[in-house]
Amino acid sequence: MDYPLVIGELLKTGLRANPYQRISDAGGAELTYAQFGARVHRLGSALARLGLGEGAVVAVMDYDSHRYLECFFAIPMLGATLHTVNVRLSPEQVLYTITHAQDDAILVHEDFLPLLLPLLPRITRPVHLILLSDKPATPPQGFAGAYEALLAAGDPAFVFPTFPETTRATLFYTTGTTGDPKGVTYSHRQLVLHTLGVIACFAPIPGRGGIKADDVYMPLTPLFHVHGWGFPLIATMLGMRQVYPGRYEPQKLLHLIATHGVTFSHCVPAVLGMVLGAAGSEAVNLAGWKVIIGGSALPEGLARAALMRGIDIHAGYGMSETCPVLTIADMAATQGTEDTTFIRIATGKPIPLVDLRVVDPDMNDLPHDGIATGEVVARAPWLTDGYSHNPIGTADLWRGGWLHTGDVGNISPDGTLRITDRLKDVIKSGGEWISSLELESLISAVAGVAEVAVVGVPDPVWGERPVVLVVAQHDVGKAVQAAVQSAIAAGRLSKWAAPDRVLRVAAIPKTSVGKIDKKAIRARLAQA
Amino acid sequence: MDYPLVIGELLKTGLRANPYQRISDAGGAELTYAQFGARVHRLGSALARLGLGEGAVVAVMDYDSHRYLECFFAIPMLGATLHTVNVRLSPEQVLYTITHAQDDAILVHEDFLPLLLPLLPRITRPVHLILLSDKPATPPQGFAGAYEALLAAGDPAFVFPTFPETTRATLFYTTGTTGDPKGVTYSHRQLVLHTLGVIACFAPIPGRGGIKADDVYMPLTPLFHVHGWGFPLIATMLGMRQVYPGRYEPQKLLHLIATHGVTFSHCVPAVLGMVLGAAGSEAVNLAGWKVIIGGSALPEGLARAALMRGIDIHAGYGMSETCPVLTIADMAATQGTEDTTFIRIATGKPIPLVDLRVVDPDMNDLPHDGIATGEVVARAPWLTDGYSHNPIGTADLWRGGWLHTGDVGNISPDGTLRITDRLKDVIKSGGEWISSLELESLISAVAGVAEVAVVGVPDPVWGERPVVLVVAQHDVGKAVQAAVQSAIAAGRLSKWAAPDRVLRVAAIPKTSVGKIDKKAIRARLAQA
Repeated sequence: MDYPLVIGELLKTGLRANPYQRISDAGGAELTYAQFGARVHRLGSALARLGLGEGAVVAVMDYDSHRYLECFFAIPMLGATLHTVNVRLSPEQVLYTITHAQDDAILVHEDFLPLLLPLLPRITRPVHLILLSDKPATPPQGFAGAYEALLAAGDPAFVFPTFPETTRATLFYTTGTTGDPKGVTYSHRQLVLHTLGVIACFAPIPGRGGIKADDVYMPLTPLFHVHGWGFPLIATMLGMRQVYPGRYEPQKLLHLIATHGVTFSHCVPAVLGMVLGAAGSEAVNLAGWKVIIGGSALPEGLARAALMRGIDIHAGYGMSETCPVLTIADMAATQGTEDTTFIRIATGKPIPLVDLRVVDPDMNDLPHDGIATGEVVARAPWLTDGYSHNPIGTADLWRGGWLHTGDVGNISPDGTLRITDRLKDVIKSGGEWISSLELESLISAVAGVAEVAVVGVPDPVWGERPVVLVVAQHDVGKAVQAAVQSAIAAGRLSKWAAPDRVLRVAAIPKTSVGKIDKKAIRARLAQA
Repeated sequence: MDYPLVIGELLKTGLRANPYQRISDAGGAELTYAQFGARVHRLGSALARLGLGEGAVVAVMDYDSHRYLECFFAIPMLGATLHTVNVRLSPEQVLYTITHAQDDAILVHEDFLPLLLPLLPRITRPVHLILLSDKPATPPQGFAGAYEALLAAGDPAFVFPTFPETTRATLFYTTGTTGDPKGVTYSHRQLVLHTLGVIACFAPIPGRGGIKADDVYMPLTPLFHVHGWGFPLIATMLGMRQVYPGRYEPQKLLHLIATHGVTFSHCVPAVLGMVLGAAGSEAVNLAGWKVIIGGSALPEGLARAALMRGIDIHAGYGMSETCPVLTIADMAATQGTEDTTFIRIATGKPIPLVDLRVVDPDMNDLPHDGIATGEVVARAPWLTDGYSHNPIGTADLWRGGWLHTGDVGNISPDGTLRITDRLKDVIKSGGEWISSLELESLISAVAGVAEVAVVGVPDPVWGERPVVLVVAQHDVGKAVQAAVQSAIAAGRLSKWAAPDRVLRVAAIPKTSVGKIDKKAIRARLAQA
């Protein structure tokens, strides 16, 4: 008998593992898994009544909520595509993604009505609108209804359809630094295998690390960002206690961590920095909180600050096109090591079933000597097939039969990958490749540096030269140069890496997902 | 890009997770994973030189050895089928399986030459023969060579071919109590998904239980028995330290456990009983040894004896047709429970992606009330498609689109499955169903009882009546009846369960895989 790998099976597993387990929401909801499962079925029936089934595209604009988690299951389980809208994009970009995705329905939190309503006249396709709210709410005119009212009228015993595992389950848009957002899609099979692959890597970590069934999970990556990195599906399948934080506000996050005893989260460096730096943070005991850092490199300074608070922090690596997880820091190697910081911030080892190579521009493998640096390319059962309606972008992504990450790095003899930079952010100076990321990591540990960005600026003699931007309370220029010189003396950096300038700025430009926007920085420096 | 789920990817994952990790063999070999990987590639090249590739069937007759583990990978990675021969079958049955499987090659340990050589004249198909031995050995005439010599001449950089994930990977024969052995096959996809599913269940168990990357693994189920229950693939993928025991001898097993610090094993009840009862067993510290019991129910008496020794023992459930794992005891439920024995011996909960139902003869679901008892039927991504060249057996196995386990049981409101008996071993007495297994479990805990079997014998009035066979040092008849009466008084057994007779015997008849042979017992009782 054929048994397709579909998301509905992940839900089934979680429901029977732990029917009495709880899912909490900062908006006030407290659900058992049994109640959650009934709500998923009610949602499925409500959407089916609107005619949304196989092939339909259903968009969600929400904070991280239990309702979003319900959508993670009910929409793909209908055979429809879940479009997770990046609500941090500009209104024009949001309109572009809704139009490009050909959304048939949009579930929108009331806070995002000011963003969506002005766009509606320009959405030419008929679209069902459903209002999400923690309070009883009257939907605006033209809406199909309020989410909770539709669920109340729904059928908790609704039977979802069956379909092949290659059916498209999710769609979201990735914003490069150039051009229109690109649509990235995943099938049921890919999401199920990602779930199993990530568990097979995290769960066997000995001791209290990794993922265990008694962890208390709270996402700190928006669910619209690459399926919340896949962890909401993992937590649900394992029947874990879950906490959904709604809108990210540092005080609230600290309160939720303390109240619910959160033990497992994941986020970009900036969010953890926000939590650690929030007023009253020191009063909350964060010891034993496991935090996976991704989205950009884990700076040494942040890692040390987190470890001081007892946080079990380490890096993971992946991208929008890879579902996302490709590697995690080699936590097994930390056993018996005194200072584990450098193991924790390294890109680490591929998780099960991920094949990684570091190649030169002709796709030849570079030696695994920890030095030879080239582009990282990947294969795995959960990498996107390509960009939606974008054959040129897809062909470029998959040239040579391997997914091109656009990251450069090296592999050590024991198989550990170290990402040194983005291909486009490498500073090419006099024939040398200088890693902007390595400079940033080093400078982040200099006392007084709150944030740092390093970019290459055009230079008539050397091609490019590094320039440093720092956010700091006082002048740190000399300390930064001293730290770089010391790393050069120790052989950790090439002598060409010494920055030409260290500029103190009020803020570092960021992209909508909180990453340093180097394109914007280069543009500003070029203007200046 | 298509990424097939193939066994070679499991090996790759293990090799890079832990290239310096060791695999030990009681025969004297000590290999790093890097060396092991090179040997797998050498074996692949040696077999390919003999013309064995996609579609070929390669049989292995060996004890649990590192060479067998090499075959677990190299043979399927060629696109060939690994036929794991049950060397405990009668010579005629072994001949039947070799002929039915259409073996193209047989890798045979020297100890099994007396079994195989007399059969060779009756194997009409041309077959390559390879000799396995821990010592330098000269193969008999007509052999293609000795395994170690072929490997020495092999290519450690051999490139295995690619093929679809539905390619057949393994074949073995299950001996029912009637008819010829039946061939059961599994594809690469099924084995990869079984590996991931079992890890997703065992690894997230909190604390020191379950499977962790720092476990030391030693199989105590023959590798020819349903892929050693799948754990050799799991251990290799996770880069775990592994110990292969060769022929099972109690003193040697105890020595290996103590020497290598074995922490994870699996076996049928009889093998654990043999280890615990061996001379000198008490002198070996078994505290912390995790032992999964399957193949038949875990008797309460054995569970208590193991717990007294500090062994972390619990049941798993599956069968030859299910790859094999379907459920494990709900170890999460043991937290905060004083006497965990009944949780540990229960069939437990389905592992991720396994769908189980308990149905009446018309395939209607029975209520999950912990009482209503019917046949257990299953679906999962790793159940066999059916019996090789046996469409009638296959149709019966899969009737109604669900795999029929032939086991009867019930499901409690929290989703825990309890197997109460084999459908064919249930004792039907006066319209009541009496579980022979429940009686056996109860009686196993009576002081002085070493082994027990309960069967139904024909009765002119009641249809069938229970008869008990015990192995005991002294007469335990009264104690057995008293224990049964006490369970009847407590409502745990129906009053019809009181056995008509308790017979003390020298030994309980067993099948080739160590299970109680109830067919043989019933035949003997009928003769008497």
